[in-house]
Amino acid sequence: MRDKNPEKRIRILDAALKVFATRGFYNAKVSEVAKEAGVADGTIYLYFESKDALLIALFEDRMQRLIARANDEIARTEGTVLDKIRQAIALHLSLVLDDPDLAEFITVELRQSGKFVKEYDNPKFTEYLRIFRDLVLAGQEQGLIRRTVDARLVVRAIFGALDELLLTLSLTHRNRSVDLNATVDGLCDIFFDGIRARPAH
Amino acid sequence: MRDKNPEKRIRILDAALKVFATRGFYNAKVSEVAKEAGVADGTIYLYFESKDALLIALFEDRMQRLIARANDEIARTEGTVLDKIRQAIALHLSLVLDDPDLAEFITVELRQSGKFVKEYDNPKFTEYLRIFRDLVLAGQEQGLIRRTVDARLVVRAIFGALDELLLTLSLTHRNRSVDLNATVDGLCDIFFDGIRARPAH
Repeated sequence: MRDKNPEKRIRILDAALKVFATRGFYNAKVSEVAKEAGVADGTIYLYFESKDALLIALFEDRMQRLIARANDEIARTEGTVLDKIRQAIALHLSLVLDDPDLAEFITVELRQSGKFVKEYDNPKFTEYLRIFRDLVLAGQEQGLIRRTVDARLVVRAIFGALDELLLTLSLTHRNRSVDLNATVDGLCDIFFDGIRARPAH
Repeated sequence: MRDKNPEKRIRILDAALKVFATRGFYNAKVSEVAKEAGVADGTIYLYFESKDALLIALFEDRMQRLIARANDEIARTEGTVLDKIRQAIALHLSLVLDDPDLAEFITVELRQSGKFVKEYDNPKFTEYLRIFRDLVLAGQEQGLIRRTVDARLVVRAIFGALDELLLTLSLTHRNRSVDLNATVDGLCDIFFDGIRARPAH
């Protein structure tokens, strides 16, 4: 509705991220989000029709920002398409330090909404994956990436590895220090050159 | 307790898998599991102290079977350690066809228990990952896998890719036919040889 307050919407989303990350999506109550946002319980429902709708709106908002940031960082990265893939990998994993609530939300809470996983078409996630896919396709065009690999499968494999690592880092980073650079380098080494030993030549 | 009936415990676990996969862990009620198992509601609590405990017991039971099957198939696979890794990858992805309820449970429902993800030490999952890690370490010993890759990172990357692909397959296989062999071959190609183009020689 046109008479809604954009600033208040943002405040509710920020509060939802904090509450979902702390309490878990299923345990979180809309009234807790309202309290955190400093609005009346009923106000939430003027902006979002249900807790599931709030989860989806939060995901779309945060993914939109992540997409914008990824596109920006990729554009500013000098070097080959492989350097740009490395930058996108580094950005994704950096969430564990830069925005731990978001990292936990993406890896843990997001799968908690059955509605989200099973019924939601998830266009922002598709758009995020397309960033990686376009890089792989460009690399194949340029002869830097093997033309025989399936670009969609490469993207699913890389995203899966990133999601698993971000989950692991999210659950442990409060206990241990994290060497993100070593993880990014190691992951790129695996995906770029594979694990098979090759004879030196 | 010693006077419990092992057959009844198995019946409750089978019922729980079916109910969790159909209704989702959070929506599922213990009374629905009881009805599916053909036991009284209170009987469930003689075997499992809570719905979270039932989830964990179910996971441990199914992972134990998967671990046994993986070890057996790996032992029977002729060829190199890379062939054995391929077999373990194929087994994991085959769950989408052989046991779709389990595939959905592992990829979707399991992360739904905040208790499971955050507090449970998850020894069976560690044991499952160790199968892959032992293969990678053996491959490094034998000079078939590069010694410079971090075995733990390789395992996380492979498991993450498998989890993401199994999730995608679980959500779509009822609509499309699945060419598992092509997916397994494609994934092994990516992980074994990497995506970087190399000059022919």
